[in-house]
Amino acid sequence: LRQGVGEVIYGAGKTPEQIDRIAHTLWEGGQRAILITRMSEAAAEAFTKDVPFEYFPDGHSAVVGAQMEPDVRGNILIITAGTSDIPVAEEAAVTAETLGNNVERIYDVGVAGIHRLLSHTDSIMKARVIIAIAGMEGALASVVGGLAACPVIAVPTSIGYGTAFGGVTALLSMLNSCASGVSVVNIDNGFGAGYLASMINHMEESK
Amino acid sequence: LRQGVGEVIYGAGKTPEQIDRIAHTLWEGGQRAILITRMSEAAAEAFTKDVPFEYFPDGHSAVVGAQMEPDVRGNILIITAGTSDIPVAEEAAVTAETLGNNVERIYDVGVAGIHRLLSHTDSIMKARVIIAIAGMEGALASVVGGLAACPVIAVPTSIGYGTAFGGVTALLSMLNSCASGVSVVNIDNGFGAGYLASMINHMEESK
Amino acid sequence: LRQGVGEVIYGAGKTPEQIDRIAHTLWEGGQRAILITRMSEAAAEAFTKDVPFEYFPDGHSAVVGAQMEPDVRGNILIITAGTSDIPVAEEAAVTAETLGNNVERIYDVGVAGIHRLLSHTDSIMKARVIIAIAGMEGALASVVGGLAACPVIAVPTSIGYGTAFGGVTALLSMLNSCASGVSVVNIDNGFGAGYLASMINHMEESK
Amino acid sequence: LRQGVGEVIYGAGKTPEQIDRIAHTLWEGGQRAILITRMSEAAAEAFTKDVPFEYFPDGHSAVVGAQMEPDVRGNILIITAGTSDIPVAEEAAVTAETLGNNVERIYDVGVAGIHRLLSHTDSIMKARVIIAIAGMEGALASVVGGLAACPVIAVPTSIGYGTAFGGVTALLSMLNSCASGVSVVNIDNGFGAGYLASMINHMEESK
Amino acid sequence: LRQGVGEVIYGAGKTPEQIDRIAHTLWEGGQRAILITRMSEAAAEAFTKDVPFEYFPDGHSAVVGAQMEPDVRGNILIITAGTSDIPVAEEAAVTAETLGNNVERIYDVGVAGIHRLLSHTDSIMKARVIIAIAGMEGALASVVGGLAACPVIAVPTSIGYGTAFGGVTALLSMLNSCASGVSVVNIDNGFGAGYLASMINHMEESK
Amino acid sequence: LRQGVGEVIYGAGKTPEQIDRIAHTLWEGGQRAILITRMSEAAAEAFTKDVPFEYFPDGHSAVVGAQMEPDVRGNILIITAGTSDIPVAEEAAVTAETLGNNVERIYDVGVAGIHRLLSHTDSIMKARVIIAIAGMEGALASVVGGLAACPVIAVPTSIGYGTAFGGVTALLSMLNSCASGVSVVNIDNGFGAGYLASMINHMEESK
Amino acid sequence: LRQGVGEVIYGAGKTPEQIDRIAHTLWEGGQRAILITRMSEAAAEAFTKDVPFEYFPDGHSAVVGAQMEPDVRGNILIITAGTSDIPVAEEAAVTAETLGNNVERIYDVGVAGIHRLLSHTDSIMKARVIIAIAGMEGALASVVGGLAACPVIAVPTSIGYGTAFGGVTALLSMLNSCASGVSVVNIDNGFGAGYLASMINHMEESK
Amino acid sequence: LRQGVGEVIYGAGKTPEQIDRIAHTLWEGGQRAILITRMSEAAAEAFTKDVPFEYFPDGHSAVVGAQMEPDVRGNILIITAGTSDIPVAEEAAVTAETLGNNVERIYDVGVAGIHRLLSHTDSIMKARVIIAIAGMEGALASVVGGLAACPVIAVPTSIGYGTAFGGVTALLSMLNSCASGVSVVNIDNGFGAGYLASMINHMEESK
Ligand SMILES: Nc1ncnc2c1ncn2[C@@H]1O[C@H](COP(=O)(O)O)[C@@H](O)[C@H]1O
Ligand SMILES: Nc1ncnc2c1ncn2[C@@H]1O[C@H](COP(=O)(O)O)[C@@H](O)[C@H]1O
Ligand SMILES: Nc1ncnc2c1ncn2[C@@H]1O[C@H](COP(=O)(O)O)[C@@H](O)[C@H]1O
Ligand SMILES: Nc1ncnc2c1ncn2[C@@H]1O[C@H](COP(=O)(O)O)[C@@H](O)[C@H]1O
Ligand SMILES: [Mg+2]
Ligand SMILES: [Mg+2]
Ligand SMILES: [Mg+2]
Ligand SMILES: [Mg+2]
Ligand SMILES: [Mg+2]
Ligand SMILES: [Mg+2]
Ligand SMILES: [Mg+2]
Ligand SMILES: [Mg+2]
Repeated sequence: LRQGVGEVIYGAGKTPEQIDRIAHTLWEGGQRAILITRMSEAAAEAFTKDVPFEYFPDGHSAVVGAQMEPDVRGNILIITAGTSDIPVAEEAAVTAETLGNNVERIYDVGVAGIHRLLSHTDSIMKARVIIAIAGMEGALASVVGGLAACPVIAVPTSIGYGTAFGGVTALLSMLNSCASGVSVVNIDNGFGAGYLASMINHMEESK
Repeated sequence: LRQGVGEVIYGAGKTPEQIDRIAHTLWEGGQRAILITRMSEAAAEAFTKDVPFEYFPDGHSAVVGAQMEPDVRGNILIITAGTSDIPVAEEAAVTAETLGNNVERIYDVGVAGIHRLLSHTDSIMKARVIIAIAGMEGALASVVGGLAACPVIAVPTSIGYGTAFGGVTALLSMLNSCASGVSVVNIDNGFGAGYLASMINHMEESK
Repeated sequence: LRQGVGEVIYGAGKTPEQIDRIAHTLWEGGQRAILITRMSEAAAEAFTKDVPFEYFPDGHSAVVGAQMEPDVRGNILIITAGTSDIPVAEEAAVTAETLGNNVERIYDVGVAGIHRLLSHTDSIMKARVIIAIAGMEGALASVVGGLAACPVIAVPTSIGYGTAFGGVTALLSMLNSCASGVSVVNIDNGFGAGYLASMINHMEESK
Repeated sequence: LRQGVGEVIYGAGKTPEQIDRIAHTLWEGGQRAILITRMSEAAAEAFTKDVPFEYFPDGHSAVVGAQMEPDVRGNILIITAGTSDIPVAEEAAVTAETLGNNVERIYDVGVAGIHRLLSHTDSIMKARVIIAIAGMEGALASVVGGLAACPVIAVPTSIGYGTAFGGVTALLSMLNSCASGVSVVNIDNGFGAGYLASMINHMEESK
Repeated sequence: LRQGVGEVIYGAGKTPEQIDRIAHTLWEGGQRAILITRMSEAAAEAFTKDVPFEYFPDGHSAVVGAQMEPDVRGNILIITAGTSDIPVAEEAAVTAETLGNNVERIYDVGVAGIHRLLSHTDSIMKARVIIAIAGMEGALASVVGGLAACPVIAVPTSIGYGTAFGGVTALLSMLNSCASGVSVVNIDNGFGAGYLASMINHMEESK
Repeated sequence: LRQGVGEVIYGAGKTPEQIDRIAHTLWEGGQRAILITRMSEAAAEAFTKDVPFEYFPDGHSAVVGAQMEPDVRGNILIITAGTSDIPVAEEAAVTAETLGNNVERIYDVGVAGIHRLLSHTDSIMKARVIIAIAGMEGALASVVGGLAACPVIAVPTSIGYGTAFGGVTALLSMLNSCASGVSVVNIDNGFGAGYLASMINHMEESK
Repeated sequence: LRQGVGEVIYGAGKTPEQIDRIAHTLWEGGQRAILITRMSEAAAEAFTKDVPFEYFPDGHSAVVGAQMEPDVRGNILIITAGTSDIPVAEEAAVTAETLGNNVERIYDVGVAGIHRLLSHTDSIMKARVIIAIAGMEGALASVVGGLAACPVIAVPTSIGYGTAFGGVTALLSMLNSCASGVSVVNIDNGFGAGYLASMINHMEESK
Repeated sequence: LRQGVGEVIYGAGKTPEQIDRIAHTLWEGGQRAILITRMSEAAAEAFTKDVPFEYFPDGHSAVVGAQMEPDVRGNILIITAGTSDIPVAEEAAVTAETLGNNVERIYDVGVAGIHRLLSHTDSIMKARVIIAIAGMEGALASVVGGLAACPVIAVPTSIGYGTAFGGVTALLSMLNSCASGVSVVNIDNGFGAGYLASMINHMEESK
């Protein structure tokens, strides 16, 4: 996380008790913006709420303490091809918001209905960083990459069936994007995209 | 080929002499629109021109006899994402023209510059069948499929490097197209696409 | 869907409530032939039946409103190699019927018993479009493609074990069909095949 | 090779001199039916012909000494889908003939023209063992396996392009054959098929 | 199955009721040696036993009517590398016995303890056909193939973890066996191996 | 390229004449910083030098006109694991320099000699963007990503043999980096990395 | 196991009863250090404890009898990248301890925080054999291999998601390690690594 | 290389001049046992022989200075399945000899002729470390691993065709070896195996 900011707990494969203990230990150590990703609703319910705790069910994520105030101008724009991609998008959004960014969301604008996507051209042109999220054939990254003047972080998702191969097709598609300025993270890795987007969005300060 | 029409010789892996012999045998058997695909310039030069023979270098194809007169209204539209895809496109075009179709060509309109593609929306809306040809991430098929009201035959090409995997990425992308009305043929199979497009374009006659 | 016709809801990954809500919203918006695919029996039972609703259990699909009257002459012929392929076939059939096509079904005529398939040569020769559905080695598409004079849409299914690889073997086999006029859609994509078949079957009108 | 019969030299990756030396050493050791596979024409020309030597260019194979007299009734039937599969077929044929079998050849009867294949139903029904050889989608094995009452050895070939993947598609297709009595050998392994076919054809003697 | 013999029902993916119905229909049609493979214990228990019925739990298979009397001299030898391969072996054994063969079983003699395997050299040398069954690295087929003078049918199994890839490693290993006379069937396909072994074992009669 | 800046010609698969023509056309159109990547020495020699032209042999790239003056403070740091990765690194470097960035190069500091890499910790900590380039196991990206506070663009290269699989292993490794702030581009895509690095390095201006 | 030492039971896929029976039979046969791997807590609880029995829940392993006294100087060092890799590490540790080795454990020192790993340089330099265990990108093996002067056995684990592909990425990464002295075992094969490490650690005695 | 010993130059992808220069620089720096692997005969001939230089053509390797005197008792045993595996074996042998080990070679004892391998059981039982080298199905590693009491380093080679997949099949086979004490290095990595074998063979000294 950003300097003096916090920690991230990757909740997958951890029991509610383990998450609870790690988070409280970090809190006691002075952390005030602890992000927990891949946290089930059950784990969120079981969490000992003697510390500030907010759960974001759409992104299966939580924050212990509080999200940081946005400290950069402009938006991180998060775009998804379908509605099934939203959990990954929200993991990215919660991550970016926790790290002090304004997030704009445009969901379900896959390229098969290109005019819906194009109706958001303004947002795309004005964004400081874009996170493009898609499963199936992952074509969204190329079209958005072509429209945008800013860095595009492409996130393949495991949405689809048959030859979608759990996100591999979208990944390959995104790696071969004919648009410049596009890079890729692991399948379903909303956290990684949100983190990197925040890093890029905070560039000027680090100079 | 269409009823009473002709034959196709697949030139790959055949010597110029073999192609020459097969073509002349078919000609003597009465065929008058013999298509030869995957024919090298060398093979075309070596061909014994005592029969009507036209070579189409861009599509590495030739016709012995003559292409059939277009006998259907409307166009088969062939679109490519890049210029490197043109040999496959021309293989499709020569095939479709030989089988009696009007062909409209729109080349190098990949989705990273979506406005160039959109400037052809009229052609896309009016086409009777579309052949969408792309390598790399193959996203063209999805965008065209979303714009078009007609059948779209997607042809992945072996253009690209690294994770383009010789056309596999484009193929997978096209198979997962989120647009309806899209089907796919083998990598680089311009002939197959042209043949099927002609078949669809001639539908009404076969009723 | 065809002009002024309807919408499709992809039920996989949606809760019964979500499907219910989307369908009713479309109905209220005036749609009268709403197709729902990948709908479980449970979701069908839970559906609020204050609108005309028919569930087709074999194809795991439903129609809200009514299927359109067949408005084209001739048949879409749906052929499967095995009985396990029938759910995919019925998804295609319900889709095509909803879109106003006559559908002829020939099931369980895999190529290992070639004479059963050949006993249907008449139907194959007379069809306007054929949907050939097979898992395992997917050889059906090649044999049917060789017999038929019309477009063949091949649908690989995830039927088989071991090196069937969930439909990949059938897919690859179909992409390499030595018969002309064959194109392929994603594994188990009965909807896509039915939709494209309808589009081709309605060709003459769109001229 | 069969009891008291001979040896096989796999010529691929060996220099003409190495093949020459090994063959002569075997000859001097008393072998009288030495099979050499994957032997180039150049190697055949360079061979020191002070021993009986016959080269079979179609199968890129040679015999030092002489092929054995057929000592079993009935035929090994070798069928190929295309003409490009013939080198593999001839490797199988030379192997089987060298080992004392009658071989019947039926070439270029791929399943896309099923009636050409069916015109050979008699040969298929009467064969003692069948070797079915095909590249591309490899569907031949399933159709032949369905017609035949005898063991079918399927040989995938590396013929094809794109998703033929150098024989992998044909291999997978053959492994998933829905016909009983079909087994498979490595891609392009004509020798292995010919050897196994001979072994099966000589079954009764070994009892 | 062999001439005038019977039928096979592939139980996987069928309900107990479906299996019951198909089997009884075949019985009523006069079949007297109906093999059912991939049949769960539950399905066997639920089977209506108004016809002769024997269930073989180790091979998850059953016979309706009776297995045929062995009508050929000599044995089909079934060898497995591990104990986990036994269900596949027993599927092969039940199949072969139902078709009228004597079966000899040698289980758990993987090549890492080569002397256990070698202590069975006599059985290997005397067998008429061998079925070699192994998961993991599948090396058994090569060693047995080298020892045996008869056809070896190799069956890869899905036993193993990690890079065993559900049987793919064993399959590849077997296809590349450096021993002659080895061919391969699909992963876990005990039935196919048993059927082919019986076909080969009955060779002399079909002459 | 950056606003009002220039164009890029991808030289692979183009003849020297084609490159020459396109570059001159762009020059005549007013472009003054035309980047040509994947240009062979032969093409560079054949280039008509009536326009300012500089060839960078290590990166197989050229600039027609002139590279832009660095207009941002700080460095883009390019790190490679081996010396064989240098051509990809130089493609990235020439791209970034052409687009107006200072580039610092640290080559041949693979993680198997971690202390050589750590001796550059200062450069890594001070960089504004890092491009980490590696073939074989691609571990460099993870270690650098852990040390750096800035965005890391990982470029897998096709260096290695056997299971390096032409860059696939490095790619997969980089996609799974346990360090945050790492994203990935296509195998050997030095241009893409240099372009994106420049975009990020120019962030503040675009605000 | 080492001369006169014991036996290993691979518990995966065996019922508690089967494990119980095999272990007791071995005990009665005189074995006094029987290792059981992949044993569930349930199986451990059900075990008939009329023989000395110790269960190690972290490594899902048990010993019947007793672990051997360490009989070699120096340590086998086991290092993991993450906490999720600990079960594999403990399988290796229990194996090595049972075979008479001292084991040092350093867990959760992945390369993204290289300084944590480097703080253990002393242990790495002094170890006699190292087992490096990692999932995701598996980079640990290369860094440790570069630091260590002793043999490094790399164990890929199935930890990770998306393109971690169940351990394949870590495996490929480890096979391509640029450090010398590194070899690899199957994914999650803690037992194999512990066994081999013990064998190497006992080298001098076997001389 | 071992303490105070030398360096290794990986010759692949380097020009003769580059190799020459690096080797002379190392020599001038005081190295006296410089190993060069993957060195072509042409590069060896072009080498400036003003320093002691010996080329080993079978292993495509050279030593500048001199190989070290064997300083450990016992042998490293190198076994290959075929003659085509010898170049990899000799790369391992030259490496191990240069590092001061006695090497025993047993070549061309593949498991299809198990008795040839078994005739070397004595050597296998007495070896201190074994390097088992095989392409195709790679079964050698399992059989040798079962016979040997010492560590076995398995090296898959790229020998074979079709489904040998350039060494991948042998690699997978070796990773799944059912024998304990076997680990694996990259395809064709004779150097890595020789280096690790020497490290293990020198274990006692490093204590
Ligand atoms: N959703 C996620 N996907 C990938 N990596 C994550 C995710 N959430 C957290 N991480 C990473 O996991 C680390 C924490 O892992 P752990 O110590 O297992 O909780 C963080 O520092 C992040 O780098
Ligand atoms: N470029 C092509 N790609 C795929 N198939 C082709 C191509 N050209 C021709 N064919 C097919 O190949 C057949 C002729 O093959 P052949 O008998 O080998 O010349 C034709 O009937 C077509 O079905
Ligand atoms: N069975 C199916 N397989 C693939 N795509 C489908 C299927 N059913 C519907 N679709 C597509 O999914 C779209 C609706 O998706 P959704 O908005 O998620 O309900 C439709 O417009 C169709 O293009
Ligand atoms: N966790 C493990 N992973 C891989 N192989 C194992 C494991 N545990 C035991 N083994 C091997 O499995 C053999 C015993 O297998 P089994 O006879 O099926 O119990 C032992 O001799 C070991 O070689
Ligand atoms: Mg852009
Ligand atoms: Mg459309
Ligand atoms: Mg046809
Ligand atoms: Mg048959
Ligand atoms: Mg044999
Ligand atoms: Mg970092
Ligand atoms: Mg080391
Ligand atoms: Mg051993």
